[in-house]
Amino acid sequence: MSETDPLVVFTPSGKRGRFPAGTPVLQAARQLGVDLDSVCGGRGICSKCQITPSYGDFPKHGVTVRDGALTEWNAVEQRYKDKRGLKEGRRLGCQARIEGDVVIDVPPESQVHRQVVRKAADARAVAMDPATRLHFIEVDEPDMHEPTGDLERIGRALKAQWDIARVTVAMPVLRGLQTVLRKGNWQVTVALHTPREGAVPQITAIWPGLREGGLHGLAIDLGSTTIAAHLTSLETGAVIASSGVMNPQIRFGEDLMSRVSYAMMNPSGAVDMTAAVLEAIDGLATAIAAEAGVERETIVETVFVCNPVMHHLLLGIDPVELGQAPFALATSDPVTLDAATLGLKALPASAQIYILPCIAGHVGADAAAVALSEQPGQSDDLALIVDVGTNAEILLGDKTRVLACSSPTGPAFEGAQISSGQRAAPGAIEAIRIDPVTKEPRFKVIGCDKWSDEEGFWQETAQSGITGICGSGIIEAVAEMRMAGLLDPSGLVGSAAATGTDRCIPEGRTHAYLIHDASAAGGPRITVTQGDIRAIQLAKSALYAGARLLMDERGVDKVDRVVLAGAFGAHISPLHAMVLGMIPDVPLDKVTSAGNAAGTGARIALCSREARADVERIVRQITKVETAIEPRFQEHFVNANAIPHATDPFPELAKLVTLPHVGFNTGGSGDDGGRRRRRRG
Amino acid sequence: MSETDPLVVFTPSGKRGRFPAGTPVLQAARQLGVDLDSVCGGRGICSKCQITPSYGDFPKHGVTVRDGALTEWNAVEQRYKDKRGLKEGRRLGCQARIEGDVVIDVPPESQVHRQVVRKAADARAVAMDPATRLHFIEVDEPDMHEPTGDLERIGRALKAQWDIARVTVAMPVLRGLQTVLRKGNWQVTVALHTPREGAVPQITAIWPGLREGGLHGLAIDLGSTTIAAHLTSLETGAVIASSGVMNPQIRFGEDLMSRVSYAMMNPSGAVDMTAAVLEAIDGLATAIAAEAGVERETIVETVFVCNPVMHHLLLGIDPVELGQAPFALATSDPVTLDAATLGLKALPASAQIYILPCIAGHVGADAAAVALSEQPGQSDDLALIVDVGTNAEILLGDKTRVLACSSPTGPAFEGAQISSGQRAAPGAIEAIRIDPVTKEPRFKVIGCDKWSDEEGFWQETAQSGITGICGSGIIEAVAEMRMAGLLDPSGLVGSAAATGTDRCIPEGRTHAYLIHDASAAGGPRITVTQGDIRAIQLAKSALYAGARLLMDERGVDKVDRVVLAGAFGAHISPLHAMVLGMIPDVPLDKVTSAGNAAGTGARIALCSREARADVERIVRQITKVETAIEPRFQEHFVNANAIPHATDPFPELAKLVTLPHVGFNTGGSGDDGGRRRRRRG
Repeated sequence: MSETDPLVVFTPSGKRGRFPAGTPVLQAARQLGVDLDSVCGGRGICSKCQITPSYGDFPKHGVTVRDGALTEWNAVEQRYKDKRGLKEGRRLGCQARIEGDVVIDVPPESQVHRQVVRKAADARAVAMDPATRLHFIEVDEPDMHEPTGDLERIGRALKAQWDIARVTVAMPVLRGLQTVLRKGNWQVTVALHTPREGAVPQITAIWPGLREGGLHGLAIDLGSTTIAAHLTSLETGAVIASSGVMNPQIRFGEDLMSRVSYAMMNPSGAVDMTAAVLEAIDGLATAIAAEAGVERETIVETVFVCNPVMHHLLLGIDPVELGQAPFALATSDPVTLDAATLGLKALPASAQIYILPCIAGHVGADAAAVALSEQPGQSDDLALIVDVGTNAEILLGDKTRVLACSSPTGPAFEGAQISSGQRAAPGAIEAIRIDPVTKEPRFKVIGCDKWSDEEGFWQETAQSGITGICGSGIIEAVAEMRMAGLLDPSGLVGSAAATGTDRCIPEGRTHAYLIHDASAAGGPRITVTQGDIRAIQLAKSALYAGARLLMDERGVDKVDRVVLAGAFGAHISPLHAMVLGMIPDVPLDKVTSAGNAAGTGARIALCSREARADVERIVRQITKVETAIEPRFQEHFVNANAIPHATDPFPELAKLVTLPHVGFNTGGSGDDGGRRRRRRG
Repeated sequence: MSETDPLVVFTPSGKRGRFPAGTPVLQAARQLGVDLDSVCGGRGICSKCQITPSYGDFPKHGVTVRDGALTEWNAVEQRYKDKRGLKEGRRLGCQARIEGDVVIDVPPESQVHRQVVRKAADARAVAMDPATRLHFIEVDEPDMHEPTGDLERIGRALKAQWDIARVTVAMPVLRGLQTVLRKGNWQVTVALHTPREGAVPQITAIWPGLREGGLHGLAIDLGSTTIAAHLTSLETGAVIASSGVMNPQIRFGEDLMSRVSYAMMNPSGAVDMTAAVLEAIDGLATAIAAEAGVERETIVETVFVCNPVMHHLLLGIDPVELGQAPFALATSDPVTLDAATLGLKALPASAQIYILPCIAGHVGADAAAVALSEQPGQSDDLALIVDVGTNAEILLGDKTRVLACSSPTGPAFEGAQISSGQRAAPGAIEAIRIDPVTKEPRFKVIGCDKWSDEEGFWQETAQSGITGICGSGIIEAVAEMRMAGLLDPSGLVGSAAATGTDRCIPEGRTHAYLIHDASAAGGPRITVTQGDIRAIQLAKSALYAGARLLMDERGVDKVDRVVLAGAFGAHISPLHAMVLGMIPDVPLDKVTSAGNAAGTGARIALCSREARADVERIVRQITKVETAIEPRFQEHFVNANAIPHATDPFPELAKLVTLPHVGFNTGGSGDDGGRRRRRRG
């Protein structure tokens, strides 16, 4: 380029350079490293390289753009516009050639690494940098006089047309290579998987001709109880469909330790559990693809996040070591492999799998995903992040240091082991309020949003669709009972006599609170029993004790903010969580929900190689704390059994609520009618 | 190291350097890049690092070695000697430390890259450089307070103890990792596969403790008719056992083109043939390991050589494109994969497979292996190498240029499609002489070496163990019939009247030569029929025409020497091959046998990564000639039908033999009794 060549300025990047007249815009963009997409490699058929030239004076860029700065609209562009449409003012970067000084805007949809705002709760922007990308190539036909393999000619085409020096090929692709090449009449689109910038790409899929549809990936959050999958576009990062199934390993044991025990006790225990989970994932992948109308062959990448026991059972590694000190993982590094090696059948055999790194023997890739999604290491203030599930993953940190542990909360928070517990599904009570004077409940039922009372959307109802109480419902119920004076700080439910309400009914030698009784009509009778209270106390004590242990390690006795993550984190009322003593005392507006942060982390890793490198770095830097061997954990656990807590003060909570001073242990009456003040905001 | 430090000179390398007193010899060797082996990494248990110190004056090295140049014999060495024995004068390089100037000899068996002379026919030396090597490591136990995965601690041990910066792990190994580590009490031996110097090694096997036995590999010559496997030590390169089976694909078609047709005609044709050959290889691998008493888990590498159709069917690639012009291979590059991906079950799932590159659509990895073994590109004179099998691979070249083609000879040379044909097995006539005067045959039968006549080891016999005639036997029979005047140049067998012997018996409208008749005793009646002659003529014409085509390309009408390769190349009599016109005319002492050169090439590639790089380079440099589309091939083929040839002179042959001028076409008598002179040497 010489000083007399036309000057080209690209926006929004601001990259600029001079190019000889006649240079295609796409070529200029590539030479300057401007982020302009292309699948067809400049043949005017994929339309990924759309650009918008601007005309007039641009003092900011020191350029005046005149008519004729680009070559005229050509037949290729017209054909494309006729066939598929092209927005007014748009040109194809591979067709339009530079003739004079010009300012060229690259619209977001033409950027490879475009920022995509997902529609998920947190709307975090992800810079698209997927490991697998499409490349259209025209391959030389074989020549008997210069014999070369079809694969070698594909390699030459990638070198000549995309400047990719070397590739390898997955065996399943090699097996079908010749048919596809001939079907596409020597024009094919290959999916190249490049795990890291600079790595040798592998051809993991091939289609005849120009591949029209995009590539897809699955972000899978493999939990002890449920498996959730998000079918995601690898082009835009958008979630196309989400679906979930129960983890069929539940039949081998409800919680992690009972599954480890099953593996220890049964010779083929681990193998059976691996087979079960793979079959479930196959079913889920098939269903979600069918639901979204997406060909399974286009699902070229899958990312998993899971706890260590799920991680080992997914990979076919016996989890026995995770059941006993020192809780050694087979590997804590990220695992990459293909679908065939993993044993999945619903995905293409050469689909690439990435499993996030684990943090420690009890702190898995799910916690790593939360760390990726929530970035506590980027936080200015000290954040406590709890991912509530069958096991709670807990992260505490800020820019200086991040600590992590896990705590065995058990499935009570998910509505399991609760007398009237059920999954968060239509018919489940998900929120509840108990009048402090009348002790009468009002509640909200999933799938029933047509009733509301004067306060907003709460209403007493006896309608018959109620089937049970889910995790967020039971948490609120216990907290409301405490606030209404039906429960004392030790967790004992008072009698009708002690509480002054007939809803406190005898249940063996203890008492239960009756929420809803449709038994006369053959419906359910829903109570919160003393056993339910105990299960929630165990769970919340474990969660609080884990958080407290990290605070000890960090040398603090309070945190600046709390983030509730996990599939049902979004549904927990912060006030009720604090009344229960699930989380440490903070101002109420400092408790936020991160939604399914682990799933979000999985989606981020699915869409971005840089995010994978990021989470690998984050995991190395996290300080791991093992709760199982820490004597203080037991101490914290015992103290956290009281509601909200036996020893820790809750000054922020006290500003909002005065908890009644009741005590049912000795059968005494206590302050069972203590009014509570509640200040919102 | 300073100038006052002791000087250490290693022989035979001559490498030298000064080291502080107290430096172990093994460490000094490593720092100087001296080729001194070690599996245990200097712990005095593997004994791979044995060395011999020399004492006295060494003017050549400028050193005088005194007593005390090394530390005294120590307890570790004594324990090793007591347990396993140690040759007089030997020390363990990891135990003996340098105290003064010393000359140290590294015996061949302590060298990693030792030259190993194989026991095969050609006794070619192979420099051992296997892709997989053993490394003993001591791994840190897991620490709950600093949680790391077992794999990560293995990586740290390899870094600390072997200076290996990074490794990956095969999934099957990862699945069993934790058990082996604990069984070995945190001492394990890992097999590291490093395909190229500088590549990231992969852990492909792991054993508890110090692995005592060595590693093994299989070199497999996968032919259209037979599959031959050589179980080879990856430590010494020695062949431990060899075995073969028939290729079960024969039931789908005897020759390559009929198998391609089968794949074209039957939807699951290719899949069925792939399954059949994999099953056969599994059976062969199991049998050969059992025969040699070798654990299959130690077979960590397998190398295949095969023609292109076998290559594609092995890999599960439909060979249909190889059946029609332009004969495009799916890939001509070397293929690397693991046993599980290939679909072999008898080998460890992570055993590494290397398939040599193909040269062209009709010239396969078997020809590449011959080129590696015979190195025509290193030859000063112009060498013609023919690998005789169901398909003949033909190489012609010298230091300036190498050409290659293949020619469809069919299975006649292997005794198939011959009326009394059989494999080279006990009972088969493998050599024959016909008296030019009496027309009586004498022959040699495989498995019967107890008779001999005055000429050496030939004797007429009517013993009943004879079952048929094998490839080398039929070639000799046809050539002898021609020399004895029983056959005219066009290949017609004369009648009893025309030849003057009752052994020329009528066979329909043609004649046959009776070699052996045990039918009276219920045994076989073995004749060479006119059909047998025609089959041999077709085969030899194809072979000769291919050679002639390469000579045309090279612009020569004679070659300097001929190498007969192939499993039965060793058994072909050069004189008879020349009488038949199988090969061009050269002085008889310029015809040599290379034995099973393809199998040898496979073994070389199995033992040496450098050889793999070498064959990949060789293949790129070979000029490929496609016989199927070359009009001159047809012309050469027709001219080569005569015995020895219709137009090409055979001056060297004429010095040895005068072929009778006979002609049976018109029923004329011809010169049926013409004496032949034969000069040996």
